[in-house]
Amino acid sequence: MITLLTDFGLSDVYVGVMKGIISQINPQINVIDLTHQIPPQNIAAARFCLMNAYSYFPHGTVHLGVVDPGVGSTRRAIAVKFATGFLVGPDNGIFSGVLSQSPALSAVELTNSDYWWVTQSSATFHGRDIFAPVAAHLASGVLLDDLGSAIDIASLVKLELPNRTVIDTSIHGCIQYIDSFGNLMTNIPGDDIIGKRWIVIAGGVEIPGGKTYSDQPHLSAIALIGSHGWIEIAVNGGNARSQLHLDYLDPVQVLF
Amino acid sequence: MITLLTDFGLSDVYVGVMKGIISQINPQINVIDLTHQIPPQNIAAARFCLMNAYSYFPHGTVHLGVVDPGVGSTRRAIAVKFATGFLVGPDNGIFSGVLSQSPALSAVELTNSDYWWVTQSSATFHGRDIFAPVAAHLASGVLLDDLGSAIDIASLVKLELPNRTVIDTSIHGCIQYIDSFGNLMTNIPGDDIIGKRWIVIAGGVEIPGGKTYSDQPHLSAIALIGSHGWIEIAVNGGNARSQLHLDYLDPVQVLF
Amino acid sequence: MITLLTDFGLSDVYVGVMKGIISQINPQINVIDLTHQIPPQNIAAARFCLMNAYSYFPHGTVHLGVVDPGVGSTRRAIAVKFATGFLVGPDNGIFSGVLSQSPALSAVELTNSDYWWVTQSSATFHGRDIFAPVAAHLASGVLLDDLGSAIDIASLVKLELPNRTVIDTSIHGCIQYIDSFGNLMTNIPGDDIIGKRWIVIAGGVEIPGGKTYSDQPHLSAIALIGSHGWIEIAVNGGNARSQLHLDYLDPVQVLF
Repeated sequence: MITLLTDFGLSDVYVGVMKGIISQINPQINVIDLTHQIPPQNIAAARFCLMNAYSYFPHGTVHLGVVDPGVGSTRRAIAVKFATGFLVGPDNGIFSGVLSQSPALSAVELTNSDYWWVTQSSATFHGRDIFAPVAAHLASGVLLDDLGSAIDIASLVKLELPNRTVIDTSIHGCIQYIDSFGNLMTNIPGDDIIGKRWIVIAGGVEIPGGKTYSDQPHLSAIALIGSHGWIEIAVNGGNARSQLHLDYLDPVQVLF
Repeated sequence: MITLLTDFGLSDVYVGVMKGIISQINPQINVIDLTHQIPPQNIAAARFCLMNAYSYFPHGTVHLGVVDPGVGSTRRAIAVKFATGFLVGPDNGIFSGVLSQSPALSAVELTNSDYWWVTQSSATFHGRDIFAPVAAHLASGVLLDDLGSAIDIASLVKLELPNRTVIDTSIHGCIQYIDSFGNLMTNIPGDDIIGKRWIVIAGGVEIPGGKTYSDQPHLSAIALIGSHGWIEIAVNGGNARSQLHLDYLDPVQVLF
Repeated sequence: MITLLTDFGLSDVYVGVMKGIISQINPQINVIDLTHQIPPQNIAAARFCLMNAYSYFPHGTVHLGVVDPGVGSTRRAIAVKFATGFLVGPDNGIFSGVLSQSPALSAVELTNSDYWWVTQSSATFHGRDIFAPVAAHLASGVLLDDLGSAIDIASLVKLELPNRTVIDTSIHGCIQYIDSFGNLMTNIPGDDIIGKRWIVIAGGVEIPGGKTYSDQPHLSAIALIGSHGWIEIAVNGGNARSQLHLDYLDPVQVLF
């Protein structure tokens, strides 16, 4: 099985072409779309989405992630083996969320063009020329080591968020993802507030903690533990991003 | 086979995660997307879309519908058996269109957490925690009765539209769905006007009846029997919703 | 295998219904979406997308293309056999890009309603009533000749672009497609400029030739050979369509 996550959108045939290539290499592979609507070149969003999706897939799944502002430059093309599967894509930090939860076991730079679609890649579409065919070969049993030269897993690019800081009566964190409904996902895990009374301060306003959207009146803000396990700021029946004027990486504080 | 219909959109990984869970329970299941772009929390639109799609799928198909403004509240999670398959989702009326055409045979409340993904559901994402795994088990042969406690099919929530009223020379109805092109679907079946000369009055204007969009000049309104069998109001090459200033549930009258 | 390309969008159940019908005719068929977001009724865009996608699919693939402003009129419904597969859809020029690269071998008008979903087609949804079931039967081994009456391949509708004109020191062409990022694809093949120094003139401005987006500063225009092999005009990190005020069929000149 292969999952696909890109910022290609669904208006063009880019995604379809990658699936065509996968089906030519091995028609038995089951391909599942995670999303193709990552905001263009937003590596942080791709990192969050992969981190919150990978654990729902079977052991051995190949996760193909292509959000690749550096395509055609010197950034490395990589494949990584970790406990429950494989990651294939550019070495720019999109996999650092997954690997913060489930560390890399080994990694290669994709230098062996025997497993590419073409012997010389285009400068702009490595998803088609390198990543999709490599993922299809991995999912078909080709060994990681055959795909290129081994690289030090300590050298993999990490996308670092502002650390969350835990003090006696408060936690400082930030917004790491915004979904299409405008819900704001912080980098503060729900485990931090279990069994406590708490509020959130973000965008200069106090937001009460609760359990579900409807715990607050229509169009009122609420903080809760989201379905992915992070503290999330939402507006019941509304859009927290626009109503609270908050964006990626803006600071968030939890008070007990 | 399982069909999916939600208002989750395609920007986030919510739909992909549901497919991952289904594939873990049974990798042989064929999953087909009906749509994930139901207008947020629009139960009427979900009801119409399911009603007009279910009959094109094989006998035994499980239709998973998650448009669920009441998630986390006391609304019931249900599975329903009907003549040609199964329905799984919240008990809020999204299935009442299907069941108006093909009545429920039996129904259960999804109380047996043995068939959930987790033993305790999150408050906000029953699609992942309850509905997707239950649908996968149903599609794999688990019996409806094993999924929870039986409920009276008369107690299933219905979403009622204003009745259509048939008088000698006219029919009064309403708009029950608007597609992405702005075409307006009424709740008046095409059978009502077979063999007659007719016009439609909606939004204060007279709209001629015809057979196909191009029966009227470019940007002119036309009424016809839509591909789904209901009387539909369209604008040739344009958008009827915005041009005629009409919306969900607005009244429509057919005159002979 | 069947590929799908339409302008139906993903908000409605139209695409899902076509997949339901295909699965009823033959549940073993693998269906891959090319795109369903062709700009409404834009035959030129559909022609370009099919032309740039078909070659990535296995031999024998059936490509189903439904961008069909003439549905319900007298335009023909056709199936075409070419070297590596089949084309099914309206005879309005959407296949003329594919067939300019890989000529038609034989063609039929889809007059045999034995292979339709219904014996009498609706006036507005031939994708469901005719094209999807015919494609499923073709992919299952039904012979082209059984689908209807043979037609002269010279009579197939062609969508003609302004010819590109090659003079000693310049090439005149036009924009044949615009992708969702606003990148402008010309009808000038990259082979025309291999080994030369070149610039592009479009929208009254000079645009330098290069190899990849990042060869120019952020928000500067660049011309390059796109991943599909055509000369493409892009803006590094921006939208060439809106920044350069260019649209479909606007003239483009390459100077050496």
